[in-house]
Amino acid sequence: MAVFTVVGAGMMGSALCVPLADRGHEVRLVGTPLDRGIVESLRATGVHPGLRLALPSSVRAYFAEELAVALDGANVVGLGVSSAGLAWAGAALGPYVRGDVPVFGITKGLVLEGERLVVVPDALRGYFPEAVRERVAPAAIAGPCIAGELARRVPTCVVLTGRSSEAELGRLAALISTDYYHVFTSTDVVGTEVCAALKNAYAMGVSFGAGLHEKAGGVAGSLAAHNYESAVFAQATVEMTALVRRLGGRAETVAGLAGVGDLDVTNNGGRTGRFGRLLGLGLGVDEAIARMDGATLECLEILVVMRRALAGYRGRGELGEGELPLLEHLMSVALDGAAVAMPFAKFFGGRGALG
Amino acid sequence: MAVFTVVGAGMMGSALCVPLADRGHEVRLVGTPLDRGIVESLRATGVHPGLRLALPSSVRAYFAEELAVALDGANVVGLGVSSAGLAWAGAALGPYVRGDVPVFGITKGLVLEGERLVVVPDALRGYFPEAVRERVAPAAIAGPCIAGELARRVPTCVVLTGRSSEAELGRLAALISTDYYHVFTSTDVVGTEVCAALKNAYAMGVSFGAGLHEKAGGVAGSLAAHNYESAVFAQATVEMTALVRRLGGRAETVAGLAGVGDLDVTNNGGRTGRFGRLLGLGLGVDEAIARMDGATLECLEILVVMRRALAGYRGRGELGEGELPLLEHLMSVALDGAAVAMPFAKFFGGRGALG
Repeated sequence: MAVFTVVGAGMMGSALCVPLADRGHEVRLVGTPLDRGIVESLRATGVHPGLRLALPSSVRAYFAEELAVALDGANVVGLGVSSAGLAWAGAALGPYVRGDVPVFGITKGLVLEGERLVVVPDALRGYFPEAVRERVAPAAIAGPCIAGELARRVPTCVVLTGRSSEAELGRLAALISTDYYHVFTSTDVVGTEVCAALKNAYAMGVSFGAGLHEKAGGVAGSLAAHNYESAVFAQATVEMTALVRRLGGRAETVAGLAGVGDLDVTNNGGRTGRFGRLLGLGLGVDEAIARMDGATLECLEILVVMRRALAGYRGRGELGEGELPLLEHLMSVALDGAAVAMPFAKFFGGRGALG
Repeated sequence: MAVFTVVGAGMMGSALCVPLADRGHEVRLVGTPLDRGIVESLRATGVHPGLRLALPSSVRAYFAEELAVALDGANVVGLGVSSAGLAWAGAALGPYVRGDVPVFGITKGLVLEGERLVVVPDALRGYFPEAVRERVAPAAIAGPCIAGELARRVPTCVVLTGRSSEAELGRLAALISTDYYHVFTSTDVVGTEVCAALKNAYAMGVSFGAGLHEKAGGVAGSLAAHNYESAVFAQATVEMTALVRRLGGRAETVAGLAGVGDLDVTNNGGRTGRFGRLLGLGLGVDEAIARMDGATLECLEILVVMRRALAGYRGRGELGEGELPLLEHLMSVALDGAAVAMPFAKFFGGRGALG
């Protein structure tokens, strides 16, 4: 068994401790400076206030300032921070990073560096001190995983991706898998991370359907706007495939866990869907945000990143106009306050008969 | 405007009459011998008892024995029968089929001829008299479309596929599209029809999750077994891609309307999902079927077809063992009465760490 130090005590980082503890590893969970209340609760009662359950009793919680102690003798470092916490985590972990201690994170997606999109594992590496950068290639976990379900041991399949070898990824995956947490591996970092980032935006669009249906006076049930939602789901898959190809990833990654799997779970399981429903109901963006009680909305973050990135890619002639009609509409609605009016006729290559 | 004769007055054939009538076509809806009650209701009140709404008043309903009258002067023939009604429809329409009258159907999927899988448009052609077979290439509509939603003009995107040219498909698509019914075209008949058939079986498997969650005492909501469901969804996409490729279709068809789009709508919108939930709850197959009140279960039909077909393909060395672990499990559960025990570790190429 190994010593795992997981940095970031939010929902997903903490949920990850459940399979790790169940595998018999020594698990040390370190809160960020923002996680003080969570660490206090874990120390006092064992209960994680966000997950609303007790973590396995073997998991030990640490405050941010105890990071050095928590990392002492660690065999593997897990990162449970959001993308906003990456810079902090890179700086905090930097002095302790060693070539022989694998680093992996549940942070995933894309960040903008200049006018280029960079996948999170590469961005994290950039935050490490130059001296160790060459010796460590952070991995990342993607795929359909709602933290609260993993923490309750619902069967879950995820994919571990990174720039290390298939064999190295396999060794790490073997260390963290259990009979309910199935960790597969992929060397397609770009495809996996592009899907992980974009699925949030696209899931928001799928959920417009629920709001539109409700606005039209319909009640939830089997007769709803499922045709609308599934058409958007299909176009989202087409656009994710186009973007993955354009950015150097593999199309088959979209047709698997990281792509359609994660898009599906995001539609069904959480705040992105609730937010999309509010926009479909006709609420303005600010009003919809206000109704979300401060929840992190990754869908908005990635739309901001993508708008800036797409301008750059188009400027350099690397992406044509009209290739991503759904993404463009999502940007108009969520960033410019345009009304929801799904451009179906432009979907699927614009081969719609009346398009 | 054109004269459309739609044969088969079930839910989907009748729903199709709504956009046709809205486009201003003359629409004649002909019941099969099994649709007498539906035609009587349509003639008496205009209400379709299955759809539970009135069709547009311009739609005229005919009994099966009035087929010749209803076909007189028709410019396009639509087929709204289930796959069980194909032979009847082929024989009944045969005498009237002409090379210059396009035939298209909402019947879709795969049938077994000998040991080979045949797509429905080809099978239908085979039911026509030999003299006209070469002059007509039936088309088929696939993609995410719940009949009751289309009949209520929920925005819907479908794909028209067939062995005629892209231009001919485009002309037909243009005739039937409206501002809420978006008809795209694809010349990948095999890919489209393989997806259309298999999505029923796979959607059943996705829905095991809902039953398992309920059986474990969970209530419906955002914390459920969505991780389970989305992992099955992703593996279904992987297996549909493998089958489409093996049978000569195009992988990108799976990552679009006919594949993930239709799989998504089938999970959300209907009887297949309810049936899968019952199996996930632990009911035996017979008991689950009994609870479905005689609803057609395409998922069982296609599993029977696939079991026989796969044996043939394997016997000829055209398909390896272990390539379709999810489909194999679905067959075991639905055809052999095995307990639900999803073989997650065998998914995604078996690269699961504990697989």
